[in-house]
Amino acid sequence: MSPRGRRPGGADTRAAILAAARADFAEQGYDATSVRGVARRAEVDPALVHHYFGGKAKLFAAVLDIPADPAALVGAIVHGPREQVGEGLVRTFLALWDSEEGRQRFQALLRSAVTHDEATLMLREFLAREVFGRVVRELHPGAGHGKAPPPELELRAGLAASQMIGLAVMRYIVELPAVVEAGHDELAAVLGPTLQGYLVPGA
Amino acid sequence: MSPRGRRPGGADTRAAILAAARADFAEQGYDATSVRGVARRAEVDPALVHHYFGGKAKLFAAVLDIPADPAALVGAIVHGPREQVGEGLVRTFLALWDSEEGRQRFQALLRSAVTHDEATLMLREFLAREVFGRVVRELHPGAGHGKAPPPELELRAGLAASQMIGLAVMRYIVELPAVVEAGHDELAAVLGPTLQGYLVPGA
Repeated sequence: MSPRGRRPGGADTRAAILAAARADFAEQGYDATSVRGVARRAEVDPALVHHYFGGKAKLFAAVLDIPADPAALVGAIVHGPREQVGEGLVRTFLALWDSEEGRQRFQALLRSAVTHDEATLMLREFLAREVFGRVVRELHPGAGHGKAPPPELELRAGLAASQMIGLAVMRYIVELPAVVEAGHDELAAVLGPTLQGYLVPGA
Repeated sequence: MSPRGRRPGGADTRAAILAAARADFAEQGYDATSVRGVARRAEVDPALVHHYFGGKAKLFAAVLDIPADPAALVGAIVHGPREQVGEGLVRTFLALWDSEEGRQRFQALLRSAVTHDEATLMLREFLAREVFGRVVRELHPGAGHGKAPPPELELRAGLAASQMIGLAVMRYIVELPAVVEAGHDELAAVLGPTLQGYLVPGA
């Protein structure tokens, strides 16, 4: 056997963890999947999962083939200046998806959401917990007094997401010329105030 | 042959027209398809196409299995009170899609948009010409002075559509609980001002 036939153990381990995570997320959804359970399925120590992926949200991003951890990006924005949250979310979203590769990833994601119920479930739970839930908790820390945030805020976070997903559908799937040709500044100028109004009403 | 084996000529003719229209829209897109061409393919008189379907936009709605002609609905709203355009569009959209049947139709529509390029093309051209184009022309009759509307208005119309498509993705596909559970009044209260701001800026 030539040396070229040997693969580094790290790549194998990483691939095994990813395969186990893909199976667990698909079978159990996002909420019920744990780093410990994925490690068990991959037959590795949970510390290795943290070493390679850094936690459940990042593991999920890796399974979806998303180039960055959306939860971390959202966290950075909601901790920035409060009056720039809307525009910041628009610009971050575009930076994440607005490339030929990103467009293909969004198409793949939407395709599986439309055709496979299991993909929809894990996407829904991830968005609810790590993205919108985070936005609502960080922007309105007093809301709900430690309990679940009030439905009004959850609805507004969901509608903010709906605007961004709709933008991606028009820009990457339907490809309406005016929406495809718009630059980031133009989109941020029109959509920023919308997201700001949804997420930080009155601010 | 029993009398039950005979089908009324009208149903046959209608089905033949629909099949011809489906093929023409798929092969040529919305813009290049004509009532005359569909009639030729179905081997009927063009007057029969008008008799059964009432024109190209309605024929397209029938092919997509949409229960109403979106172009006519949009026309009714933009001719109503100018300050209620945003809320009117949200309520009309929900009335059109917000049923078990509508939800399934939206899923089918999005599925074919994501998977078949030809469906995307005809959808894009239909939306551009009959829906957004109409909104922009009716709301801003002076804009562009008879030429194509300025790109800024086309972008805003496209973004209005993106908000409604995104709402449908979250409500009918991803099914985020807060968005699924919201009533029409709540949705109109949050989304109405968004559409109003996009389509009638400053009004």
